[in-house]
Amino acid sequence: MQSLAHYQSLIADYFETSSVVKEPKNLYEPIQYILSLGGKRIRPVLTLMATEVFGEDCKKALAAATAVEVFHNFSLVHDDIMDDAPLRRGHETVHEKWNINTGILSGDAMLILAYQHFEEYEPAVFRDLAKLFSKTAIEVCEGQQYDVDFETRDDVTLDEYLKMIEYKTAVLVGAALKMGAIVAQTSKENADLIYDFGRNLGIAFQLQDDYLDAFGDPEVFGKQVGGDIIENKKTVLYLKALEFANEATREQLMQLYSIQPVDPTDKIESIKSLFESTGAVAATREAIESYTAKAFQCLDQLQISSEAKAILHAFGLQLMGRNA
Amino acid sequence: MQSLAHYQSLIADYFETSSVVKEPKNLYEPIQYILSLGGKRIRPVLTLMATEVFGEDCKKALAAATAVEVFHNFSLVHDDIMDDAPLRRGHETVHEKWNINTGILSGDAMLILAYQHFEEYEPAVFRDLAKLFSKTAIEVCEGQQYDVDFETRDDVTLDEYLKMIEYKTAVLVGAALKMGAIVAQTSKENADLIYDFGRNLGIAFQLQDDYLDAFGDPEVFGKQVGGDIIENKKTVLYLKALEFANEATREQLMQLYSIQPVDPTDKIESIKSLFESTGAVAATREAIESYTAKAFQCLDQLQISSEAKAILHAFGLQLMGRNA
Repeated sequence: MQSLAHYQSLIADYFETSSVVKEPKNLYEPIQYILSLGGKRIRPVLTLMATEVFGEDCKKALAAATAVEVFHNFSLVHDDIMDDAPLRRGHETVHEKWNINTGILSGDAMLILAYQHFEEYEPAVFRDLAKLFSKTAIEVCEGQQYDVDFETRDDVTLDEYLKMIEYKTAVLVGAALKMGAIVAQTSKENADLIYDFGRNLGIAFQLQDDYLDAFGDPEVFGKQVGGDIIENKKTVLYLKALEFANEATREQLMQLYSIQPVDPTDKIESIKSLFESTGAVAATREAIESYTAKAFQCLDQLQISSEAKAILHAFGLQLMGRNA
Repeated sequence: MQSLAHYQSLIADYFETSSVVKEPKNLYEPIQYILSLGGKRIRPVLTLMATEVFGEDCKKALAAATAVEVFHNFSLVHDDIMDDAPLRRGHETVHEKWNINTGILSGDAMLILAYQHFEEYEPAVFRDLAKLFSKTAIEVCEGQQYDVDFETRDDVTLDEYLKMIEYKTAVLVGAALKMGAIVAQTSKENADLIYDFGRNLGIAFQLQDDYLDAFGDPEVFGKQVGGDIIENKKTVLYLKALEFANEATREQLMQLYSIQPVDPTDKIESIKSLFESTGAVAATREAIESYTAKAFQCLDQLQISSEAKAILHAFGLQLMGRNA
């Protein structure tokens, strides 16, 4: 088993040798641009790692891993248009650097290019990969739609929220791992277990992201603390607080979540107090623990060496920001 | 072999039984909407027809035919956003009826749903269909990008224009037919020949569309005659005229193609005269004949019954608006 950096460098090399900017340039240059902005390449690393965990050379999984990363970047390009986001990974978004039409069309091409990477595999593997990919991609679209819908709804339930983050982000983590299992041609049981490991870990990670946005150490978290509160974003903390609060507190919370003061300091502090006093913080921490534990239970059931399990376990802890 | 109406009704039935508006509604209702606007369903009809031509039950091709139609409608939804088009088939476009974000996301979902229709087939057929589909879909994106690029370029060559119409529209006609060949599991030679039949016929059809836009009978053509001229669209007539014209005529033509008078009557007449006098009209008619002839040559080489050939030949003539 290899280090994260080793997998990342394999992926970077594969990207470099397989990427050529073809004609028409206005279609392919934006694709090259967004893919070159990097990021941690967590998803394709997971595909390589899973392939190796199941006893196959991880290089065999490079094409599938690339499909996952190209798809992820497709979704970023289109989501950035929908969110009107000016920046991505510290650089201009595609629709800012070019225009919205270029963002739409280059994104479309990336979705198709992702499928083409599976053509490297024999028919049965190709079909399994493409099926899992389509199912996952549709769920990601559904998750994005729920996210958009939730912005203007006042009656979002916690279950709906959990489904949204599962579809929008967690299923792709599960799928990335399962693709490695498919390439390695392990058992269906192993493939499903590693998918559920990734899916549950993905949900835990996303819930923790909500938690850290309000309560994280800004030095470690790397984002502005309270960003979600400033934007009145309905996170797990907010939904749990609404659920637990009495009538008066609920009204106070909803009132605070309807304003956008120039100096948000007081608003952030008031809301954080409400998150604490209602028990939303404790419940969120419990939910994070619960999904993390579910993920590790799936891991335990995998029919692989204990050494391989230890590696995935260490990865899980690392993703959740804990010492292995 | 069946009538066009028979195939169309098979497709309509299949659409009706296989379409359910799922959650989230804001994702699936626009898809249902655009697919219900109809159109002639020429592409899926071609898939069914080809399957039958090669001796297989056309019902086996319904899933592949649906993939082609869903993809075609995906491209309409995204193209209509890019062109800022208010109407499609006499109804509001998706981004007008909902909004641009809905158009982007529902379009994305349609592209993925198109791939999912291939899952009905066994692995080897699935792979052949999905490979052809990806290749075609990428070419359609490239064609759309060339079309966008050409709007702001003054040095478009005729070869570039032909490549643009081939990619943007003709390859999908070829692919629709070839998918029928793949479902029927005919020989590779037959599959490639019917693809080239469709591709050449598609180019001929598109060139004829350019011709009829300026010289067609408005009663028969069903569009405003001279629409391309009013919009200064660089069609085959314009590009041939530029190629054949002397310096003075070329300047006259380019000058006329830079204005948009309130009453375009004189402009249309002047440009049509130039198209005639430069020989662009004759050359365009020759090109239409040439691509139509190429299409029918491919048809002649197919290893199928002469009855089946006659049916495809009649369809080709009908598409080109000629009596069979």
